Amino acid sequence: MKTVKIPPKHPRAESLRMREVLKQGFEEGIVVEQGLMAHGRGEAFDYLLGEKTTPPASEAITVSAAALLLAEKPVISVNGNVSMLTPREVVRLAEVVGAKIEVNLFHRSSDREIAVMSRLRSFGAGEVLGVGDKASAELHGLKSLRRWVDPDGMLVADTVLVPLEDGDRTAALRSMGKTVLTIDLNPLSRTAQTASVTIVDNVIRAMPLLVKEAERRRGEATDSLGDVVKGFDNQVNLEKSISYIADRLMQISASKDDA
Amino acid sequence: MKTVKIPPKHPRAESLRMREVLKQGFEEGIVVEQGLMAHGRGEAFDYLLGEKTTPPASEAITVSAAALLLAEKPVISVNGNVSMLTPREVVRLAEVVGAKIEVNLFHRSSDREIAVMSRLRSFGAGEVLGVGDKASAELHGLKSLRRWVDPDGMLVADTVLVPLEDGDRTAALRSMGKTVLTIDLNPLSRTAQTASVTIVDNVIRAMPLLVKEAERRRGEATDSLGDVVKGFDNQVNLEKSISYIADRLMQISASKDDA
Repeated sequence: MKTVKIPPKHPRAESLRMREVLKQGFEEGIVVEQGLMAHGRGEAFDYLLGEKTTPPASEAITVSAAALLLAEKPVISVNGNVSMLTPREVVRLAEVVGAKIEVNLFHRSSDREIAVMSRLRSFGAGEVLGVGDKASAELHGLKSLRRWVDPDGMLVADTVLVPLEDGDRTAALRSMGKTVLTIDLNPLSRTAQTASVTIVDNVIRAMPLLVKEAERRRGEATDSLGDVVKGFDNQVNLEKSISYIADRLMQISASKDDA
Repeated sequence: MKTVKIPPKHPRAESLRMREVLKQGFEEGIVVEQGLMAHGRGEAFDYLLGEKTTPPASEAITVSAAALLLAEKPVISVNGNVSMLTPREVVRLAEVVGAKIEVNLFHRSSDREIAVMSRLRSFGAGEVLGVGDKASAELHGLKSLRRWVDPDGMLVADTVLVPLEDGDRTAALRSMGKTVLTIDLNPLSRTAQTASVTIVDNVIRAMPLLVKEAERRRGEATDSLGDVVKGFDNQVNLEKSISYIADRLMQISASKDDA
């Protein structure tokens, strides 16, 4: 496989490294063309966020950690991009909050599912749901292949973390009464707007922070965790992210004036 | 080749159609992985623009048409994505303003150059510069393979239209005293900030408008065209695009409050 050396001090080294990881995933059959384009969309929004975790994102991470710890049957849904970008964090988070891991692909094929599962296993994952015939339960109201979920996982879950998700499935899971936590750089997307908790952040920053927060709060009293979740309003939080981007745009524009 | 049928009334039909065209280009070896991600970045900014040509973009299109008509040696630089998305408009614009067409790829290979040339020829292009050994002149200050340009084209051009360009090359062309016109959906990018005229718009909307404007103004007196170009300040125009996006974000945010 061709690997491209990225100078570690390049101002966009982390961003370039992610692109290379996704290219590698593409060559391994884990990432599809649509995943590369979706990553580009994320990059653009991340650029507008200044490529850092904002205060509203931190708040959403705290709430998500509490929600996962409170959940009786949490599931972490993994697609190709997530398996490439944060496999270690997916496995660790599942351990810390006692969640199951389920593969769920928009562009589904048996080969891809197995490739994603193998990658997660190489990072220490135990059971991986949603692969092949195991994904035999149907989510109502969905036309894409994402409607097929594992009867032992997503179907019976009370809380689902769906990083880099599509809007249709988030809506379907919500209409089934599940708590949906998502990580989406676009605060205006249907996924972001439909989820119970939206972390407007890059998965490579948000996932490690989510793991750390879950580790820190593990063992905290249920009442206390419940208070964290109860006080959260996703629409208000999303508006903070949108304002953050708009303010930053105006600041950048103004600073160019001064230059 | 797999083709995916897109319902013509889908609210995002045009956007989905473009993705399919680029996927096709990828399968044909014209588009590379980086091009798919770059397209995704563009999509995100286009979404923020409301997927329409804004007043500042219209102004930049008018100025670009005038600059191309005024140029003595205009060149249109074409990369993989542009050859897939607007081949017809590239060929027609070259005819109208008397420009040469030159292939210039960031991820350069002889096969890709020939594939891009063939595609342009299939849409009626005559001579296509910049292919293979013909791209033997070097732009100073550039490390990427984009430094190699055609001695009959980009090297001696006074005005270069570089849609979907990279910042390094725009800077190199500018430092050689050339007028650089670009089409870039990200008003904050180095390309956008470095060019002489930046059209902050999607190429599939901007290129047909640019053709139309060049057709309309062809034959206009040099003085009159010169006035159009002279009155233009790219930095002011870019700030208008940035404000447009920021205002739109706040409006979207406010309209969700009302809902």
